[in-house]
Amino acid sequence: MKYDKIVFGGLVVTPGGTIAADVAICGEKIAAIGSGLAELVPEAEKIDASGHLVLPGVLDVHVHLELPFCGTTSSDDYRTGTRAGARGGVTTLIDFAIPYGRDGKYESLSQAADNWHRKAEGKAMIDYTFHICITKWDQHFNQVKGMVDRGFPTFKEFMIYESEGWQSDDRAMFGTLELMAEYGSMLLVHAESSRVLDELIQRFHTPDMMQRYGARLHAMTRPNFIESEAIQRAVTWSEVTGGPLYIVHMSTGEGADIIQDAQARGIPVTAETCAQYLVLDDSVFAEPDGHLFACCPQVKKPKDVARLWQGLTDGEVSVVSTDTCSFTREQKAMWAGDWTKIPMGMPGLETLLPVVYTHGVLENRITLEQLVEKLSTNPARIMGLAPRKGMIQVGSDADLVIIHPDRKFEIDPATMETNTDWNPYEGSELAGFARTTLSRGEVIVDNYRVVGKEGRGQWLARTTAGPLK
Amino acid sequence: MKYDKIVFGGLVVTPGGTIAADVAICGEKIAAIGSGLAELVPEAEKIDASGHLVLPGVLDVHVHLELPFCGTTSSDDYRTGTRAGARGGVTTLIDFAIPYGRDGKYESLSQAADNWHRKAEGKAMIDYTFHICITKWDQHFNQVKGMVDRGFPTFKEFMIYESEGWQSDDRAMFGTLELMAEYGSMLLVHAESSRVLDELIQRFHTPDMMQRYGARLHAMTRPNFIESEAIQRAVTWSEVTGGPLYIVHMSTGEGADIIQDAQARGIPVTAETCAQYLVLDDSVFAEPDGHLFACCPQVKKPKDVARLWQGLTDGEVSVVSTDTCSFTREQKAMWAGDWTKIPMGMPGLETLLPVVYTHGVLENRITLEQLVEKLSTNPARIMGLAPRKGMIQVGSDADLVIIHPDRKFEIDPATMETNTDWNPYEGSELAGFARTTLSRGEVIVDNYRVVGKEGRGQWLARTTAGPLK
Amino acid sequence: MKYDKIVFGGLVVTPGGTIAADVAICGEKIAAIGSGLAELVPEAEKIDASGHLVLPGVLDVHVHLELPFCGTTSSDDYRTGTRAGARGGVTTLIDFAIPYGRDGKYESLSQAADNWHRKAEGKAMIDYTFHICITKWDQHFNQVKGMVDRGFPTFKEFMIYESEGWQSDDRAMFGTLELMAEYGSMLLVHAESSRVLDELIQRFHTPDMMQRYGARLHAMTRPNFIESEAIQRAVTWSEVTGGPLYIVHMSTGEGADIIQDAQARGIPVTAETCAQYLVLDDSVFAEPDGHLFACCPQVKKPKDVARLWQGLTDGEVSVVSTDTCSFTREQKAMWAGDWTKIPMGMPGLETLLPVVYTHGVLENRITLEQLVEKLSTNPARIMGLAPRKGMIQVGSDADLVIIHPDRKFEIDPATMETNTDWNPYEGSELAGFARTTLSRGEVIVDNYRVVGKEGRGQWLARTTAGPLK
Amino acid sequence: MKYDKIVFGGLVVTPGGTIAADVAICGEKIAAIGSGLAELVPEAEKIDASGHLVLPGVLDVHVHLELPFCGTTSSDDYRTGTRAGARGGVTTLIDFAIPYGRDGKYESLSQAADNWHRKAEGKAMIDYTFHICITKWDQHFNQVKGMVDRGFPTFKEFMIYESEGWQSDDRAMFGTLELMAEYGSMLLVHAESSRVLDELIQRFHTPDMMQRYGARLHAMTRPNFIESEAIQRAVTWSEVTGGPLYIVHMSTGEGADIIQDAQARGIPVTAETCAQYLVLDDSVFAEPDGHLFACCPQVKKPKDVARLWQGLTDGEVSVVSTDTCSFTREQKAMWAGDWTKIPMGMPGLETLLPVVYTHGVLENRITLEQLVEKLSTNPARIMGLAPRKGMIQVGSDADLVIIHPDRKFEIDPATMETNTDWNPYEGSELAGFARTTLSRGEVIVDNYRVVGKEGRGQWLARTTAGPLK
Repeated sequence: MKYDKIVFGGLVVTPGGTIAADVAICGEKIAAIGSGLAELVPEAEKIDASGHLVLPGVLDVHVHLELPFCGTTSSDDYRTGTRAGARGGVTTLIDFAIPYGRDGKYESLSQAADNWHRKAEGKAMIDYTFHICITKWDQHFNQVKGMVDRGFPTFKEFMIYESEGWQSDDRAMFGTLELMAEYGSMLLVHAESSRVLDELIQRFHTPDMMQRYGARLHAMTRPNFIESEAIQRAVTWSEVTGGPLYIVHMSTGEGADIIQDAQARGIPVTAETCAQYLVLDDSVFAEPDGHLFACCPQVKKPKDVARLWQGLTDGEVSVVSTDTCSFTREQKAMWAGDWTKIPMGMPGLETLLPVVYTHGVLENRITLEQLVEKLSTNPARIMGLAPRKGMIQVGSDADLVIIHPDRKFEIDPATMETNTDWNPYEGSELAGFARTTLSRGEVIVDNYRVVGKEGRGQWLARTTAGPLK
Repeated sequence: MKYDKIVFGGLVVTPGGTIAADVAICGEKIAAIGSGLAELVPEAEKIDASGHLVLPGVLDVHVHLELPFCGTTSSDDYRTGTRAGARGGVTTLIDFAIPYGRDGKYESLSQAADNWHRKAEGKAMIDYTFHICITKWDQHFNQVKGMVDRGFPTFKEFMIYESEGWQSDDRAMFGTLELMAEYGSMLLVHAESSRVLDELIQRFHTPDMMQRYGARLHAMTRPNFIESEAIQRAVTWSEVTGGPLYIVHMSTGEGADIIQDAQARGIPVTAETCAQYLVLDDSVFAEPDGHLFACCPQVKKPKDVARLWQGLTDGEVSVVSTDTCSFTREQKAMWAGDWTKIPMGMPGLETLLPVVYTHGVLENRITLEQLVEKLSTNPARIMGLAPRKGMIQVGSDADLVIIHPDRKFEIDPATMETNTDWNPYEGSELAGFARTTLSRGEVIVDNYRVVGKEGRGQWLARTTAGPLK
Repeated sequence: MKYDKIVFGGLVVTPGGTIAADVAICGEKIAAIGSGLAELVPEAEKIDASGHLVLPGVLDVHVHLELPFCGTTSSDDYRTGTRAGARGGVTTLIDFAIPYGRDGKYESLSQAADNWHRKAEGKAMIDYTFHICITKWDQHFNQVKGMVDRGFPTFKEFMIYESEGWQSDDRAMFGTLELMAEYGSMLLVHAESSRVLDELIQRFHTPDMMQRYGARLHAMTRPNFIESEAIQRAVTWSEVTGGPLYIVHMSTGEGADIIQDAQARGIPVTAETCAQYLVLDDSVFAEPDGHLFACCPQVKKPKDVARLWQGLTDGEVSVVSTDTCSFTREQKAMWAGDWTKIPMGMPGLETLLPVVYTHGVLENRITLEQLVEKLSTNPARIMGLAPRKGMIQVGSDADLVIIHPDRKFEIDPATMETNTDWNPYEGSELAGFARTTLSRGEVIVDNYRVVGKEGRGQWLARTTAGPLK
Repeated sequence: MKYDKIVFGGLVVTPGGTIAADVAICGEKIAAIGSGLAELVPEAEKIDASGHLVLPGVLDVHVHLELPFCGTTSSDDYRTGTRAGARGGVTTLIDFAIPYGRDGKYESLSQAADNWHRKAEGKAMIDYTFHICITKWDQHFNQVKGMVDRGFPTFKEFMIYESEGWQSDDRAMFGTLELMAEYGSMLLVHAESSRVLDELIQRFHTPDMMQRYGARLHAMTRPNFIESEAIQRAVTWSEVTGGPLYIVHMSTGEGADIIQDAQARGIPVTAETCAQYLVLDDSVFAEPDGHLFACCPQVKKPKDVARLWQGLTDGEVSVVSTDTCSFTREQKAMWAGDWTKIPMGMPGLETLLPVVYTHGVLENRITLEQLVEKLSTNPARIMGLAPRKGMIQVGSDADLVIIHPDRKFEIDPATMETNTDWNPYEGSELAGFARTTLSRGEVIVDNYRVVGKEGRGQWLARTTAGPLK
């Protein structure tokens, strides 16, 4: 055992708390954590973390890169997306492999995985894997087992997006959750109630209304019950099948209440929110560029924001991710005043850690240890990547991010790695950007600049996934 | 004010309790309740109720007569059905007017009401009205107000029966409940979860399985969550719209739990069960003639039976009805071993009061006052027929049923008014048949024999409907 | 059967609803209810109720007359108290017979009943009975059965009032509730948490504080948890023993929540509030004469007021009474600035119906039928006096009160029957005073004047008591 | 930084999971955790943990040594008690310093602490501190702050034990919890409902009953509600004051339900159970030597045992301790057939880890990580001793226990360190005894033999205590 590199002098956030210690790396792995390691192994390469915090690399488990969606393709691909991630301290991401259909005939789950592998290979700077989307239950149900065996134990279904050809119904969710219970795998669900949503959209989809309300209609047509009814229903299917369920991008306080209750009753359900639901609210839609902020589900009310933070400390919200799906101003302009035509999504990988660190830790909503739990440890555990990823622990991958405790940078799209010309946090100042990022022992961000090689990122095979015990 | 008839000497179940009193009738109405009325008005016609119980006429608010269904037509029409009702003490029934569709074009709600009026006119011996079924939301939504104005404040939607062309989805329920909140009317819902039910039916619908399990498959493909998920969902739409909701033929204990919780939270939801769910369980399907007992939803487990009785005393189950839909043995034989082809339904009007009186009151599960509440007073109040119907009260219609407290009759299809050659309670002995039935002051059952005239029954106009206060 | 008197032309509130009908009386009982009775029996005495409402006489089941308390004796005795009741439509009251102790030796329960009989006899104008207070469990426990046999199935324990020698502890409550379960009787509890109350009183009981806050200290030392902890504890003893429990004068919203939850779990517990908790709040203590308003427990906050009205419509609050315990201004002046010395209590019998009618029915918080339920029917049923009292029903006592629907009188102590020189509702205008009161068929209030004879009131024997079914 | 000793080759249970690693010790502290440390520092003393598990030393936070109680003194003092602890892997204990009273005048809290310091000094082999008992609120309330400042942030009150002069009432609990909220300290409560317990004891305390039921009366007089009512009440005081509350030795399933609910509502309450409640039930009292098993509260029913294990995995039970209070057979014989005279208590320190390891981990009720959480990490965090104690973490005290994963020893009082001649687990075989125990870097158990020096244990100062975040 040779210690190649030693990160010294920092405050290290470990599963047992934050301690002053050195972290020794051997090859791609963490080899030791201790006092005085730097002096003990003078020959090792030294990385000075004095005056800094040393965190496990962040896992963003909800990312879409180069996604054909809403009539265009999202603007961040694996090259720009993973560079953005690296700068934000993200060392692992999980994308969604989506099988497309034509004339009712869908690609296989395996083809979808292949397609996404191709997007990533040669471009990704950080490690990655995919959730496998089930878009046509009748054709896909007997392919699920094969994908688990191939290293993909997480699947996803959308309760909306009929027009994209992605929508699943109760039968698909029920059937998939039965399989999840059998295979030790987990179903991610985009929970919105499609038919009532359709109804509300149809009511407001008139020239008159669009003239009058513009982008505000995005929020007006999605009252909170659109999400909460769908969560309730998905939870019911999880309860009766015993299949592990993971609610993605939960945006409502009502959702948090349902999850809290379900967990207390022992139902294997987990909830994720995204950074934007913790800091933005739907007052953005009243602003001139409001349409830029359209993502799906949309950001909600201040009381939802408060309830979601509460969920992070109470425990019913286990993960913060981003639902990264970047579009440029030009792409967003396709809406032309009709909110149903806005390419929905926003950038996020680069600002996940800064946003949650600045608004969560520095503003005393959560502790530093809770931040690490929600951004690294929990996602790794739930998605079947622990203990390899998600914690600073002997034997784990040496994925580390070193941040200054309070140095802030102004958010300016022009200076960011993300491939967009606007940013939801534009103009604000955020701390928590990576001074140094290590991925499997290799420095990929140095002195706030991305220095890693494209294509060095690896696909991560997994065997099981499911709720925290 | 002249007292034409006086029912004397009986124990009269009034809203304030059971008292020894005479009931004086003037024309079609109850004119007085009191001691000594018979002596006071010697010239009035006397009906001796000595040694008997005098109850308000029963309302069966869930009846299908002459219904085209499952490829045949139910065997009781307004002639035999209302005779059967009269013999069982039923003086008011509510049927369901269903608009049928061909090639996607549906009859209007008004045409459906007209059709049902035609079935009833000239045949009905007792009073009646209809719930109006909404089978095609897109075509029917703007006809709802007109039907309320025409005297029909109760509507119904089916969450299943796609093949019959009757199925409603979340959008229809949501939209209808919004209208109910606006018009002071109420939506009845047949709550079963269609897509998962389809899935389960499809799994078992093989020659092998049918050979092996026969009629038991009817229960095996409808686990309790098929009903409870649907009830939960309907309740959610009631909650978010404020629209009054009435769950018909609730058959599961889980359903009762959901209703209890919803009522405690102030949601305007009411639940009905049927007599068969209170006395039968799904062990019937293992018997040689098990297929006869197929109704929809099917009878459930003994623990559901117990929970529904509990719901009657606790209060979350407000009404007992029958879902009368008679078929003969020959009609039932159409199944030929395939449970999905059984004409679903059973007779009920004639035995509603006897079954609930015998198994409820005589077996001390409920009091006599509770029986009257669940069979007469509550249905009248909820369906917008009180105080005209449902109680022995000055000014109300003189609809009375006089029963002997313990005289029993054996159930024998050959001697019944119901037009079927089998009966779910065949061979058992039941008390509670009408010795005398009065409908609007007229004797239509005398000494256990039906003596009323066909066609004397009247349609009952109503203005509002909704939950008990 | 001869009909002596007939109340005609009014709107009569019966258990089945409000109807236009005549009420015929034979001796002390209601003999018939019907249309046209007045014409049918021309020889009967007629009481014209045209344009008026005819209600069952009110039961005030929480009354203290001529009570030695707080170093003085309450100013209304059976003469003035029952006159006041008659004017307010109260035809039955229940007082509390309290055994006093000297040197640790207490009067027996039977002696206490005898003492209270003596207070009532020859003076009472309306019917009455007593709850039997258990003030010394060790001496009283084996006298409970005897009191039930003597016609007293309701008992009371105080969780406070150590200085009066009345306080019961958990052991007494537990033991008494065990007996209640055995005898079909019921325990009433004054629920306040004694030791923490003592602590809070002691903290504030300084010249400084009394100078500064005056009568406001009465509220400041009794935060809501003083009542709610005690209710929770009493409910626990009811739950584990199965003994019927009745919480008297509940004043907090938290209490209503506990009762609602307990009833949903099937615990045999009932709650009463008093008229003052429905219309006054503790802002009264900030006024110059604030000390007059001290009763125990004290009136609470506007949110409690709102929650208690809600409890009346939801059902968890079953009864409204008064806790009548009148003191004159001179008696109240004994406080001399020390709130712990205020004689606690206020008049109530005369204004119970007017207050609840005016603020409840006329202000649309409850219906007329709900008023009758909470003031007459429920108290009669719960206290073991139904069907004799509490409803307009053939065979019941002819206790009737006839009120004008909107004629108001200004509250002026000088013109009231109550023996006090102040009134909590002084200066306000209330409808609902009795134009006519009948007690067992006899007119005791005529044209708003009390005309009944002293001493005509009778003691009411009872056999069982307990929660509404 | 010099690494003096290295524990190598074992599986180490760290806060982040169980890993193969070496643990390097510098003086009294853990200096590093890593792969290959043993080879890297050849000069360090080596402790071979190959084939063994390395756990953090256990904290038993509920211990009574040399306690005058029930008319005698418990038989384990700081010499035998801490030797027993060491053999069982316990490296920290918390005892209870109790101020005694004579003629109503009580020792001060400070005197009590002094007394307990004297018991421990010169004898203790492991580290220790005390909870400070408040036995006379009126005299002690103004001494609380001083004890927090002196390093004692945990206090205790008994809701029973009037005869010992220890009993607190609601006023004391309320007042203490107010102080806890203010000082960042925590109140431990022995929750049993005194007055109803007295009643039940009195009922059964007859020669007849004692003859007939013997030691079984200990359980018969303490139905579960004796504990649960008291827990509910204590929780209420915690809720209204915001003061952190810790329920000691919780023995009932009902208690676990209350705690679960309270935590969900955000009340700062924590629960501890003891090893005996997880493996014994009250069938022991029917055996000939049943009286030996009397502790207080007594062991309960199998369903409580199951619920408490569930509480450990669900999370509402945070700590397992022992309530060690040893008595010899001779001392226990003082009962002479009267269960109220049994010296209540049992030994526990020596078997805490073996019992929970054998019945919990080896029988798959909890994981190894959960065991460490409940026996080490949680008690350290809650009692204000983390991160110094309770986890294997760089910078923490080198308190380690090395156990063989499955080597079992038969429980034989003759070969144990505990000073008693019987044992509740006598005859059973338990794994989990310490092969090696290190306390602050010093080996005190070597090859299953106690080798540490008496008196080397240190008192542990603390500043705050409270619930897990």
